[in-house]
Amino acid sequence: MNKESADAEVGVSCPVPINEYENVLLAHGAGGKLSHQLVTKMFAPEFGNEYLDVLHDGAILSVGESRLAYSTDSFVVSPLFFPGGDIGSLAVNGTVNDLSMCGATPLYLSAAFIIEEGLSMHDLRRIVLSMQASAKIAGVTVVTGDTKVIERGKGDKIYINTSGIGVISSDVSIDPRNARPGDKIIVSGTIADHGIAIMSVREGLAFETELKSDCAALNRLVSTMLAASSRIHVLRDPTRGGVASALNEIADSSNVGMTIYETDIPLRDEVQSACEILGFDPLYVANEGKLIAIVHEQDAGSILNSMKEHPLGKDAAIIGEVTSNNLKTVLMKSRIGGTRVVDMLSGEQLPRIC
Amino acid sequence: MNKESADAEVGVSCPVPINEYENVLLAHGAGGKLSHQLVTKMFAPEFGNEYLDVLHDGAILSVGESRLAYSTDSFVVSPLFFPGGDIGSLAVNGTVNDLSMCGATPLYLSAAFIIEEGLSMHDLRRIVLSMQASAKIAGVTVVTGDTKVIERGKGDKIYINTSGIGVISSDVSIDPRNARPGDKIIVSGTIADHGIAIMSVREGLAFETELKSDCAALNRLVSTMLAASSRIHVLRDPTRGGVASALNEIADSSNVGMTIYETDIPLRDEVQSACEILGFDPLYVANEGKLIAIVHEQDAGSILNSMKEHPLGKDAAIIGEVTSNNLKTVLMKSRIGGTRVVDMLSGEQLPRIC
Repeated sequence: MNKESADAEVGVSCPVPINEYENVLLAHGAGGKLSHQLVTKMFAPEFGNEYLDVLHDGAILSVGESRLAYSTDSFVVSPLFFPGGDIGSLAVNGTVNDLSMCGATPLYLSAAFIIEEGLSMHDLRRIVLSMQASAKIAGVTVVTGDTKVIERGKGDKIYINTSGIGVISSDVSIDPRNARPGDKIIVSGTIADHGIAIMSVREGLAFETELKSDCAALNRLVSTMLAASSRIHVLRDPTRGGVASALNEIADSSNVGMTIYETDIPLRDEVQSACEILGFDPLYVANEGKLIAIVHEQDAGSILNSMKEHPLGKDAAIIGEVTSNNLKTVLMKSRIGGTRVVDMLSGEQLPRIC
Repeated sequence: MNKESADAEVGVSCPVPINEYENVLLAHGAGGKLSHQLVTKMFAPEFGNEYLDVLHDGAILSVGESRLAYSTDSFVVSPLFFPGGDIGSLAVNGTVNDLSMCGATPLYLSAAFIIEEGLSMHDLRRIVLSMQASAKIAGVTVVTGDTKVIERGKGDKIYINTSGIGVISSDVSIDPRNARPGDKIIVSGTIADHGIAIMSVREGLAFETELKSDCAALNRLVSTMLAASSRIHVLRDPTRGGVASALNEIADSSNVGMTIYETDIPLRDEVQSACEILGFDPLYVANEGKLIAIVHEQDAGSILNSMKEHPLGKDAAIIGEVTSNNLKTVLMKSRIGGTRVVDMLSGEQLPRIC
């Protein structure tokens, strides 16, 4: 059946060039350019609505008198267990963080398991215990779930989806479209820890210091920040695609430029070394317990101080500012004084990092 | 590493016999006894809380002044496209129905895709269009999503998770614990259509009449029923595990007995023939557009009449009643006058039916 008749069969013509790629590539799930393209060209034209169009970490919904944040994420990380976390803690913290990036207090999670026949009950139990421990730390409750089992060879041990609901207090207005020229860009700590921890396990790299994922729930750090200032304009957790892709998305949504300073970006020495060995730019490596905050310049100091008092924000730093020129572009002043464009991730870099 | 040291490693002793089976079997996902065991012994002891313990199709949450229903399901059906539906319509209708079975008006859905590298963009687009068409029919909005891509051979084309949020009006009290002796048991139409449609595609069976899945959104049928009577005690969509497993779960939750009458159960002739050829008992075969209602006996007639006026309820029938004897047991009076116990599904019967 050729493409034309197949399109006719489902009764549609194709308004967008979905066939620039005829098939889905790993890179379509990597959080960079192709992921963005899949969302904007495949999903948004059909599902597009006032909630989805924001390209936020979650949707903001009005239900009765309440404003809710609602988000979903599937987790396919490999290996299942890694230094600093596992697929269970990742699945809970990932959704808690997406809700937190909407400025919400996360309350309820769903958990859905796709299990490959033959997974050991012992591993499943370790994962369940890890999820429950992470939920307890974050103060959320897993209220509903589902389990499917697929035949051997049709999965990879276990995939987990979580979705979550949080409540947004009426004085909070955090939105990827809210960045304004003059705003300061804060990152909550050292970058690239999660991706490099996963990659070093996969590659069997050994360092003097163990490289650990930063996997953590950020909701309490966000509460601390919101108590310090209401002028937090954007929050984003730089997961797949890393800090570079997250900043590009925000610059795009807010129609602003950004300048960041390489020397100000917190990065562990051992992570930097691992990046050099593995050939990765840390700006593109996934984080699972870090956030980027775009805040009013006058409040940047007090917000930064509030973050430094929280264990998950002790290495927080102002890494740059929002500009009114170079719209939709992120520039970086390098260590040696040059300036380069920091583009969104292109290609797949790190498949199955979360 | 032996089991004991592994348990010590994660800092837990194991209070439940999870190792009755050392590994997860296909049957743990089939919706019958082993699925029930996995939920009650693996998940409930850890996640257990006031919401989850109800073993409802979804959780009932209080947020502000509103009562919300919240549910999740993953869809792994094979093949992706089948007579009467596809994985997209199934994913939307499945969650719409779970919310409807809580007596909620479904409003918002999440959609999360786990795509195997190499899925054709054309198939993905067909699925997205089907989801959007189904969402439109059901009157729900897909507000948030996620896409992960896994390597070739680590999945099977596409798995979809949906979760959903609905609002429950204050006068509705539908709960699997609410069945009372004397209540009538209604089924909304012919049973086993979905499972048999899938199986005949898989087995390459051809019948004079095409066997079609009943895949449909039941929310408007439920609205019609609720308008007819507020004395609807339990609603359940008999998906995996079929009518038999659903009734057993309700009998168990409500601590009641049930008697059903074989001759009163709506069943298409061609589905009955296919069941005989394939060796399936239709009571255990999955439905995706049918519901079971347990209702006050005095209102059973008016509820049934309201259902018959709706296209999805035109074949609705009273198939039995709730009893105060044979607690937690479902009995069936057969066509030839005998009585047999209808147990919960044991074994896997139909893997990847939804």
